[in-house]
Amino acid sequence: MIQQYRYEEIKIEDIFHRTEEKTDVADTVAAIIEDVRKNKDEALFRYCRQFDGAELECLEVSEEERAAALWQVDHEFLDILREAAANIRAFHEKQKRQDFVVTEKDGVVLGQKIMPLDRAGVYVPGGTASYPSTVLMDTIPAKIAGVKEIIMTTPAKGGKVNPVILAAAEIAGVDRIFKIGGAQAVAALAYGTESVPKVDKIVGPGNAFVAEAKKQVFGRVSIDMIAGPSEILILADDTCDAEIVAADMLSQAEHDKMASAVLVTDSQRLADAVSAELERQIPLLPRAEIARASIDECGKIILAESMVQAVEISNEIAPEHLEICVDHPFAYLAQIRHAGSIFLGKQAPEALGDYFAGPNHTLPTSGTARFSSPLSVDDFIKKSSFTYYTADALREVGQKIVRFANEEGLQAHGRSVAVRLEKGGE
Amino acid sequence: MIQQYRYEEIKIEDIFHRTEEKTDVADTVAAIIEDVRKNKDEALFRYCRQFDGAELECLEVSEEERAAALWQVDHEFLDILREAAANIRAFHEKQKRQDFVVTEKDGVVLGQKIMPLDRAGVYVPGGTASYPSTVLMDTIPAKIAGVKEIIMTTPAKGGKVNPVILAAAEIAGVDRIFKIGGAQAVAALAYGTESVPKVDKIVGPGNAFVAEAKKQVFGRVSIDMIAGPSEILILADDTCDAEIVAADMLSQAEHDKMASAVLVTDSQRLADAVSAELERQIPLLPRAEIARASIDECGKIILAESMVQAVEISNEIAPEHLEICVDHPFAYLAQIRHAGSIFLGKQAPEALGDYFAGPNHTLPTSGTARFSSPLSVDDFIKKSSFTYYTADALREVGQKIVRFANEEGLQAHGRSVAVRLEKGGE
Repeated sequence: MIQQYRYEEIKIEDIFHRTEEKTDVADTVAAIIEDVRKNKDEALFRYCRQFDGAELECLEVSEEERAAALWQVDHEFLDILREAAANIRAFHEKQKRQDFVVTEKDGVVLGQKIMPLDRAGVYVPGGTASYPSTVLMDTIPAKIAGVKEIIMTTPAKGGKVNPVILAAAEIAGVDRIFKIGGAQAVAALAYGTESVPKVDKIVGPGNAFVAEAKKQVFGRVSIDMIAGPSEILILADDTCDAEIVAADMLSQAEHDKMASAVLVTDSQRLADAVSAELERQIPLLPRAEIARASIDECGKIILAESMVQAVEISNEIAPEHLEICVDHPFAYLAQIRHAGSIFLGKQAPEALGDYFAGPNHTLPTSGTARFSSPLSVDDFIKKSSFTYYTADALREVGQKIVRFANEEGLQAHGRSVAVRLEKGGE
Repeated sequence: MIQQYRYEEIKIEDIFHRTEEKTDVADTVAAIIEDVRKNKDEALFRYCRQFDGAELECLEVSEEERAAALWQVDHEFLDILREAAANIRAFHEKQKRQDFVVTEKDGVVLGQKIMPLDRAGVYVPGGTASYPSTVLMDTIPAKIAGVKEIIMTTPAKGGKVNPVILAAAEIAGVDRIFKIGGAQAVAALAYGTESVPKVDKIVGPGNAFVAEAKKQVFGRVSIDMIAGPSEILILADDTCDAEIVAADMLSQAEHDKMASAVLVTDSQRLADAVSAELERQIPLLPRAEIARASIDECGKIILAESMVQAVEISNEIAPEHLEICVDHPFAYLAQIRHAGSIFLGKQAPEALGDYFAGPNHTLPTSGTARFSSPLSVDDFIKKSSFTYYTADALREVGQKIVRFANEEGLQAHGRSVAVRLEKGGE
């Protein structure tokens, strides 16, 4: 049974399940990374045998396997994947940015140039479920950014990759796919092996080993984020349908036992009704056991004094997913200061965004929406600034730079300007 | 004496001094962070006594101290600081971004909203030299992003902060300044104490303790980067003046013994002349000892077969600073794929950008320009996406989302859509 609280009764940091967990896999992961750095492909083949029971001849998924996947997946679902990909593409296209140049002073040209990363790595988990949506969400922004080569890795139990994953990769535009999972996949992407090219950034979710490996290679390559358990916060007022609100909470709760679904409402009626609806709906779910644990352990209903206070609570929590279930949701948009993805109104369940609408579903968890953003085209570009001065323009300000350099005790900095002033030049 | 190499003779990874250094300060830093989390201000006062010999009554720099600083600094230099700040502001203003909205389908509104961080922390090193330029470069982009409160911390030997630093903070628009340095300052910014507010992002350079502390709090707050030793790569052809090229190399070399200055040229004449010029100029520098060590240990001249090959070498190295000293530098701009800040032509020494021109001087080092960017307004914002559907719009695609959810084995995701389709609604 879900717990109800008044705002005063609960500490913000307790609202979501956000304990900082220490994992004890750091040493194991460090050893795997070292092994892959040193032994490269040989280590990878060995891990494939050990963890995936796969006696591979080649680490890479062949052209034939990739082509075959498109025939193995049901055509109706392929069309849905294609439509979702088109929506994701259309949204992320708007994130593309332009170089700029500033020419406001005589003889001075400044600017910023935007370039794609050369290579990105996308990790796709294996395991029981397979998530083609993640393939689309993690790959398409890279593609739009103009990344030259997108490398996917995924564990292949018995040497086989789920055709749905391969089909999604095909639709998204992945260039090469390798049958490698776990920390060894991250190590291969970060350092490169005979088969696997070294990438500049690694994105994608994974288990504790994958997350720890991403942490350990961070700095050598860029990473997207270390995601915590998934979260939804639903702001709902008295006009809401309890059955719908409960269904939305359960769509989060079924993810895993650590996932959190929190309702913040000013309506005692809705709070009670949602509580009852959760009890009614949980047994109907195939993943009832997981949902039950999540709702009982991590789920919460918080009674706010008003919807104004409810919004304040949401801003303090900075949720990954935020649903604003009210009749005039756009009235709230300006007040939301921290949230990964915002679902506006009563007809926008989170699942719409998880799969289909277009915005990314890779989102900042654990309150990091205070300073992080959904995965986007920005994650796959980098910028260079540039500066051009004519001799005349430099002459005009040169002495000031010399003075500034001397003030900081760096005379050679000053000399590099002074020597030009002395010599003149074009 | 600087070493000369042909391209074939040297491994790219050896060109800059980019060893991954293990520091042994991790345990010390972890203990300091734990201490500050637990004992808060009491710990901070204690560290101020211990490290700065400062018996403080208040950790914060007072209004009076801040106002007094503007009178203590030479007026001419204040004007230079103000002019530099204006240039930095003008350039970074161009980095500001707009929210966007997509209304291409009936009943569907998607968008992305951009918001400043609530609070940013700027670390400013103390020590022998003081760097007002860093105060400007790290603060102004935050200010332009719209960060509500900018908190600066800097060690205060004997309780005094260098007036030049305070003046730069005043010009840049820092809101509050604390007399705290080292790992304890980073801990205070990340966790908050009675006096120091918790921030969302910490930027700024520092010694090994500060760098390690930033690493350790990363995830809880955002950080800018862990900077390695500074680097410059100069592409110069036979038309260049050796005295100028050598002066530019030395402006990098004087930073510290680990700093690297590398010349890549297709001209044997220039290579030899620069080599001789370095020997002539080093003894003239106040920081000759540092420059000598840097040039001899980390400096290099690489002879390329052509300027085309020289550009390739630069792209492989992905330098922090790149000077393109040729007569038609804009002809090279499109070919540069990885570089933090690019200085175009013979009249744009790096020092121009370090202090004055406008682009940021906080730049990706150690080859991270492959995937990282100069500090910018982007570092102080985060984005939220939003999704609105009408009931009609949801009805049109609802079954596809249900199918997608079922395909991923997440039936409660599907139910959250299905229950809306069943109920209809506005």
